[in-house]
Amino acid sequence: MTATPPSTRATVRRRAGRGRYDRETIDAILDEGLVGHLAFVAEAQPYALPMLYARDGDQLYLHGSPLSRLLGTIADGTPMCFTVTLVDGVVLARSAFHHSINYRSVVILGQGREIKARTEKLQALNTLVEHVMPGRSSDARGPSEQELEATEVVALALDEASVKIRTGPPIDAPEDYELDVWAGELPLKIARGTPITDPRCASPLPDYLAG
Amino acid sequence: MTATPPSTRATVRRRAGRGRYDRETIDAILDEGLVGHLAFVAEAQPYALPMLYARDGDQLYLHGSPLSRLLGTIADGTPMCFTVTLVDGVVLARSAFHHSINYRSVVILGQGREIKARTEKLQALNTLVEHVMPGRSSDARGPSEQELEATEVVALALDEASVKIRTGPPIDAPEDYELDVWAGELPLKIARGTPITDPRCASPLPDYLAG
Repeated sequence: MTATPPSTRATVRRRAGRGRYDRETIDAILDEGLVGHLAFVAEAQPYALPMLYARDGDQLYLHGSPLSRLLGTIADGTPMCFTVTLVDGVVLARSAFHHSINYRSVVILGQGREIKARTEKLQALNTLVEHVMPGRSSDARGPSEQELEATEVVALALDEASVKIRTGPPIDAPEDYELDVWAGELPLKIARGTPITDPRCASPLPDYLAG
Repeated sequence: MTATPPSTRATVRRRAGRGRYDRETIDAILDEGLVGHLAFVAEAQPYALPMLYARDGDQLYLHGSPLSRLLGTIADGTPMCFTVTLVDGVVLARSAFHHSINYRSVVILGQGREIKARTEKLQALNTLVEHVMPGRSSDARGPSEQELEATEVVALALDEASVKIRTGPPIDAPEDYELDVWAGELPLKIARGTPITDPRCASPLPDYLAG
């Protein structure tokens, strides 16, 4: 629950005033997001690939096929980074230079740990389904032994995480406030559409999708 | 305008049927997105950091402060990756195992090229503002010489890019279609909120923000 940077390399440098390090802020962003980007290196080339994730306490869980290059790479202890970014809006300043984005991002540095114990793996997969759709894990059929084997789960500890947040109106150069140009924020958010029932499904819409 | 992978390392491997390589698809995703994630390596640690970007023809432009570690790192020709992901919805299958996300992502591999020529730099910054908000560049005050110097612009060619797309309903195991569990898609999209005028602004809302 520290509010100071956990390490030098996890310290926000540019616009350090936007940096945060408390777990409450970190957890809130991770729990609100759905997809993050995993950075890792394979054959001297860095990659950023989108992945589902879920937080459970002090751990972030990622999953995928044991056949994937990605999971194989991160499960062996190589340095990685997982970043979750929520875009909250566009910031329109009076000058082009001061245009910006309101956002909240978490950057986690660390190494993956493959989850092999059956109980922890089941718990992690349950957490992943619940993160995608709260309430869903009690409806969907749980994993078979074969499916458990066909899923690799990697945990990433939240020990070395930082947050960067921008909120509020534009900050223009003092002399630009006289310009007759509209300035402010255009909020953006993720909106749910109308659920689309699988053509092969005759079951009713569950409560967690209604409304 | 190739529809075949531009390189081995830029070839989609897992679920290769979801891979696309044509420029029309690449451009459409890049033009719809707002923020991407840049993967780069600094002192043996990979990072994924969120960044605004804009496409102009065959180039992607990134910008930032010349003082930032990030821009300095990517302007010197080090290998990098820029990824843009659009999350289109949650896919709820009858089994936990087959839950998924509908998404469209572009992964670009390459090296940064710092834009130093004044004309190209101005054009790139204009493109960035127009990408954030079409129509905005004719309202906002353009960059001063000092601001131009305080901005570093890096171009990334789209030569080595790949797309991965998932659409449609869940694909369940054959025997699971008999289960009495709702299955389908919950579409997600980015919605604009009501513009918030800067408290220090008395100018009227521009047309491109109305409605």
